[in-house]
Amino acid sequence: MRQVTTILSVRTERQGLLDITDRIAQWAHAQDCSTGLLTIFCRHTSASLLIQENAAREVRSDLESFFARIAPEDAAAYAHDDEGPDDMPAHIRTALTQVQLSIPLMDSRLALGTWQGIYLFEHRRRPHTRNLALHLLGD
Amino acid sequence: MRQVTTILSVRTERQGLLDITDRIAQWAHAQDCSTGLLTIFCRHTSASLLIQENAAREVRSDLESFFARIAPEDAAAYAHDDEGPDDMPAHIRTALTQVQLSIPLMDSRLALGTWQGIYLFEHRRRPHTRNLALHLLGD
Amino acid sequence: MRQVTTILSVRTERQGLLDITDRIAQWAHAQDCSTGLLTIFCRHTSASLLIQENAAREVRSDLESFFARIAPEDAAAYAHDDEGPDDMPAHIRTALTQVQLSIPLMDSRLALGTWQGIYLFEHRRRPHTRNLALHLLGD
Repeated sequence: MRQVTTILSVRTERQGLLDITDRIAQWAHAQDCSTGLLTIFCRHTSASLLIQENAAREVRSDLESFFARIAPEDAAAYAHDDEGPDDMPAHIRTALTQVQLSIPLMDSRLALGTWQGIYLFEHRRRPHTRNLALHLLGD
Repeated sequence: MRQVTTILSVRTERQGLLDITDRIAQWAHAQDCSTGLLTIFCRHTSASLLIQENAAREVRSDLESFFARIAPEDAAAYAHDDEGPDDMPAHIRTALTQVQLSIPLMDSRLALGTWQGIYLFEHRRRPHTRNLALHLLGD
Repeated sequence: MRQVTTILSVRTERQGLLDITDRIAQWAHAQDCSTGLLTIFCRHTSASLLIQENAAREVRSDLESFFARIAPEDAAAYAHDDEGPDDMPAHIRTALTQVQLSIPLMDSRLALGTWQGIYLFEHRRRPHTRNLALHLLGD
């Protein structure tokens, strides 16, 4: 059994869900393991990870609307506003989703379901470079 | 150290929390490792995983009510309704909980606390067959 | 490759986010691995784990206020109240955050981002001793 790690940099252009399934799967498959465990770790507190439906586009916009509603960009609601009105809601939306996901690798493929995609959830309005630490263990 | 994987199929009969602790623990213990890490990965976007209290039944019904309230089955609230009024709330409730859990194995047992059970959280109204990818690493 | 495990006991004095980054990092670094995967598992259903911003104090108090608002200590809202008005909200806040986190170890360090700290989120009002199962795999 062996381990491989890397840092994957992802450029986000806007708030919302960005499909990173292909980039993650490509890296994982290039390590040439048949069985293993892939861990994705988002090194930020205002962007997060989500596994969600990869088919209907409305699922993603409804998810984005839900998080915008539950943790609104309303400066009056928060004490922390040094970094703009989208910063504190970004921390809350990150807390409600995940910064880490581990996905088994079986038969040389990530064990994602048919309708599952891996998304980077950018919670800030301005473009950012987000670093994901990837760790693959397997053989 | 070695790895074992399997797909566990779980039949859900209704919306809500289904205790899968015994099925998970049985499989894990049958692999005969004393120390390890078990990963459970739910291959769906409208069902999720939760570790919660295994004693008082009201905790589970209160949890179900909370998620029903925070992401209601209200067709007017969502753009995505092709698959019925319980589908989009199912995606949101999945996003708010987990599709993956990793639990250490210590002294040949899952390191769950006394009051912790592992639940499959079915968010759809109709019965479904849910596939969980299990990955155990240990020795 | 090898595995090490331990139980880390953390005393909480009050409701809210308690920074446990140093205690976790100290244990992980003492195991003398250069590459690996650290898993933290909280063995409770009314306390949870969160990776969040370690700089501005207001981020933490805003997070605490958000969870207090979304799952209020309102006895009328829940059927389960045997253990006091802060118990059922504690279960809900635990469900909305995490009981498990896995963090890659790269170049002998946890791959946390600059602004990320690891927090134990105590959801009960009274002091508690919380047990975290730690599992490190690496070499």
